[in-house]
Amino acid sequence: MKFGLFHSVQLPDPARQNQYYRDALEQVLWAEQLGYDSVWMTEHHFSRHGIVSASLTVLGYLAGLTSTIRLATAVTVLPFHNPIQIAEEAATVDLLSNGRLDLGVGRGYQWGEFHKLNIPMDEADRRFQESIDVMTRAWTTEEPFDHRGDFWTFNDMTVLPKPVQEPHPPLWVAAASPGSMDRIAQNGWNLLVGQGLTFDQVGEQVAYFKGAVGEAGQDFDPYTVKVARAMYTAPTHQQARDDAEQPFMWFKTTGDEVGAPPERRGDLLPENYQAYRRRFAAETTFDFDDMSEKVILFGTPDEVAERVERMRKAGVKSIIFFTNYGGIESQKVKDSLELFATEVMPHFQD
Amino acid sequence: MKFGLFHSVQLPDPARQNQYYRDALEQVLWAEQLGYDSVWMTEHHFSRHGIVSASLTVLGYLAGLTSTIRLATAVTVLPFHNPIQIAEEAATVDLLSNGRLDLGVGRGYQWGEFHKLNIPMDEADRRFQESIDVMTRAWTTEEPFDHRGDFWTFNDMTVLPKPVQEPHPPLWVAAASPGSMDRIAQNGWNLLVGQGLTFDQVGEQVAYFKGAVGEAGQDFDPYTVKVARAMYTAPTHQQARDDAEQPFMWFKTTGDEVGAPPERRGDLLPENYQAYRRRFAAETTFDFDDMSEKVILFGTPDEVAERVERMRKAGVKSIIFFTNYGGIESQKVKDSLELFATEVMPHFQD
Repeated sequence: MKFGLFHSVQLPDPARQNQYYRDALEQVLWAEQLGYDSVWMTEHHFSRHGIVSASLTVLGYLAGLTSTIRLATAVTVLPFHNPIQIAEEAATVDLLSNGRLDLGVGRGYQWGEFHKLNIPMDEADRRFQESIDVMTRAWTTEEPFDHRGDFWTFNDMTVLPKPVQEPHPPLWVAAASPGSMDRIAQNGWNLLVGQGLTFDQVGEQVAYFKGAVGEAGQDFDPYTVKVARAMYTAPTHQQARDDAEQPFMWFKTTGDEVGAPPERRGDLLPENYQAYRRRFAAETTFDFDDMSEKVILFGTPDEVAERVERMRKAGVKSIIFFTNYGGIESQKVKDSLELFATEVMPHFQD
Repeated sequence: MKFGLFHSVQLPDPARQNQYYRDALEQVLWAEQLGYDSVWMTEHHFSRHGIVSASLTVLGYLAGLTSTIRLATAVTVLPFHNPIQIAEEAATVDLLSNGRLDLGVGRGYQWGEFHKLNIPMDEADRRFQESIDVMTRAWTTEEPFDHRGDFWTFNDMTVLPKPVQEPHPPLWVAAASPGSMDRIAQNGWNLLVGQGLTFDQVGEQVAYFKGAVGEAGQDFDPYTVKVARAMYTAPTHQQARDDAEQPFMWFKTTGDEVGAPPERRGDLLPENYQAYRRRFAAETTFDFDDMSEKVILFGTPDEVAERVERMRKAGVKSIIFFTNYGGIESQKVKDSLELFATEVMPHFQD
């Protein structure tokens, strides 16, 4: 199996932006040394829930400091960008990394991001589709092309530099519904499975996608599916819980809020977060133990291995770990990555 | 005095994209070792005249591999970008480099770039002004702000991450006319002087800008002016000419063509460049010897030093060298940078 990072920078303490970034980037270098195969940077804007707003710029940085790890976005939110500029930036990262880019793309889901950028959220799907068409054409066409879309117009278009990978960096799309998975299979894209699904749902998704790829007339390669999972491992269950629960809950509750429709939201994560939380405390609850059983990989190496094995049996060959949430102490993240690499990874070499 | 690189990647041989990039980036690392203070990456799109289309992504890469050299754009073409995304990318590079970003900004001048992006060229100045206003506000405001402009609308806007430098990375603007220089002085921006001006014109610009800064009620700091110059030095005048003339002329003629209005242009640098050149040969001529006398820094270290001294006497304290043109052999560029650093730089330590 392959294991990577599903990586983010969050800002629980507004004064520690620079330190959080340094920590997150150091974790990537450490992960590469430990044998993790990839890092998937999230893109978020305008809130402390996620402060990597220029994910391809960050991957450019990592391109120079790493040599083997795949560099990826999960995901680049296409409705927010000029597709030609994403094509240029992605090609540049691919070139700077000697062909190590995987490009995850998505429609976006945060009401606040669409609102602030003044982009109607109900255009997200059409914007996504138009952008992916333009980008694919820009990377692969030999001749200049015209594009007349609903959202973008380009004339005699040609993009430079060209990506290193042929025909272009692999595209990864997050999806949960059967219709979306069919579309991924038909286009030859790859599947990202969200970290919020239960282990049972993950198994169902992989089985469905395998069938959809067959329907599309292709052989199924299990490495075209990446499953995102929150992960933390420590020598004892109690320590894992003590170290990880609070920061993970900061991630969960802030994520719930930035993803919520406007009528449920107040300000978008104001600095006085504690006061804000109290207003929402009655409505938003997560049961950590229940999640540990059904969704997340928190516990001793044995406990984590048992759940990885469960996913492996369901056909999962590739997992990316969300490990840097809610301002969790960086040394603990690095220790957890090391403990997984030494105690769990060796059991999943097949 | 300070000396830096005004840096570009060009693509005379379409098959050598990756090598040209590697060479250009290696030159930057070498320049840092030799004591050059900054690298200013150009932004160009869609033609082999310049293939750094994602200049802030490239600076992200360099942020990880350098430690002292200032990282800069010269220039980021504001009319082509969403100003919020430039604010985010610039803040990210500033953060990744621990506050080493200088952001050069401009209006753009290539007809082909505007045409392909379907942006009316006559909007360039207004787009430039609106973008610089939005970016400055996004970096510096404490409170979310609304923006209703001619080209962009944003609601409750807040940008993360924040730049490291206070109040934001220095802004540099290219200008030649008195009115533009007045505006730069009044806004507290910094001045980029183009590489095409003669030494005499450079002196006139510096004198005018110094006056304009005084008119704006500020003390003039000569380090707020950077002069771009093509440079190549070798042990003999003949060798300098033999090594540099042809690649520099490739840069000059292709630059003339991409900058030309549509009625004078054919295709935008087709792959069969030689055939294309023949059609233009009668109209486009550059006199290398005349330019060497009046504009560019090509020759022995003594010859180059004499022209640097001329600029120093005219009040110039900071020069950025355009050294990587037209596919010139990378080892020659590195040797030239080293020769300048060892033979010329020591004479200009004041």
